[in-house]
Amino acid sequence: MWIQKEITLEARPRGFHLITQDIERAIADCSGIQVGLLNLFIQHTSASLTINENADPTVRADFERYFSRAVPENEPWYEHTLEGSDDLPAHLKSSIIGPSVQIPVTKGRLNLGTWQGIYLCEHRNHGGSRRVVITLQGE
Amino acid sequence: MWIQKEITLEARPRGFHLITQDIERAIADCSGIQVGLLNLFIQHTSASLTINENADPTVRADFERYFSRAVPENEPWYEHTLEGSDDLPAHLKSSIIGPSVQIPVTKGRLNLGTWQGIYLCEHRNHGGSRRVVITLQGE
Amino acid sequence: MWIQKEITLEARPRGFHLITQDIERAIADCSGIQVGLLNLFIQHTSASLTINENADPTVRADFERYFSRAVPENEPWYEHTLEGSDDLPAHLKSSIIGPSVQIPVTKGRLNLGTWQGIYLCEHRNHGGSRRVVITLQGE
Repeated sequence: MWIQKEITLEARPRGFHLITQDIERAIADCSGIQVGLLNLFIQHTSASLTINENADPTVRADFERYFSRAVPENEPWYEHTLEGSDDLPAHLKSSIIGPSVQIPVTKGRLNLGTWQGIYLCEHRNHGGSRRVVITLQGE
Repeated sequence: MWIQKEITLEARPRGFHLITQDIERAIADCSGIQVGLLNLFIQHTSASLTINENADPTVRADFERYFSRAVPENEPWYEHTLEGSDDLPAHLKSSIIGPSVQIPVTKGRLNLGTWQGIYLCEHRNHGGSRRVVITLQGE
Repeated sequence: MWIQKEITLEARPRGFHLITQDIERAIADCSGIQVGLLNLFIQHTSASLTINENADPTVRADFERYFSRAVPENEPWYEHTLEGSDDLPAHLKSSIIGPSVQIPVTKGRLNLGTWQGIYLCEHRNHGGSRRVVITLQGE
């Protein structure tokens, strides 16, 4: 069984945002899958997806601070600067974190660990809404 | 054909550890798959999985040294500090490296390159045992 | 439906290279898949695959400059140095970026965003040709 849909995540500020509920809502009609895999793919090069701690918002605030130090803006040797000082760092963060996540599906549910949630990582100051392709397969 | 199982990897010290044989043992009954994909998903936010050099243990030692410098402990601007100085860096490393790997399966075997092995990346000082969901599909 | 093949990418210089067309050519016979997923897996530990901006070559040049600063050569504490000063950094970059990408397939085409292309990330000075296992599944 294959299910594929495209969803739009509302615009969020630069930073790391829990979207587990957005995804669970989008696949609510898939409870019949006993064994499967979910693939989420963000169709952008300045935002990314990851899985991390789902309880304490300071983790997500620390993520924004860490990645914005590890991939600084305004390095004098950046050449790709026409789209703003946050643009090239956003591309770099997007490839460090990655554009997709794969999550096992078991007995009709995402088989995440207790503390795992899905993050939208918004690397632009004003990234706007973001499109995600959801592909769910299983039996 | 779908096969899914959850395994527990025994506790290992902080660092990078070859687990190729643990995984091959866990999927030993899957030799009938001619074409497929293996997904490994670690159900934790302070450990990760990757694929890298399988021969020289100094690579894995250098990995631990590199990542512990690139993501240092005790930054004064970390807010998420209650669970120990190794906790927030572990979350960050987990998203930089990622919680899952996908490996093609060909003629009943993992189609890894000659020098590729599967690493458990343990980012906590005392992370304990780690759960991995194995999802194998193919025909 | 499963399709799996191994391709060889010609040797490219150290840096980040668009290979979207190489991949599209390799899967040109797969236009019958309405819903699916493409997995690309590079069988090496000193090169990697990612998805990023497909239009401006300065992005790819900035990627090479960034990653070669973030993962420097010749750190005095590297132990794995016998294969050249670019070798251990190449392994590290390979795990930061990752050895595989997953791309949704929709109506016979890769469902990439407008600005997304597939990058071969060559981390060695003289990496030679690179083998990629292509696994496409769908219906």
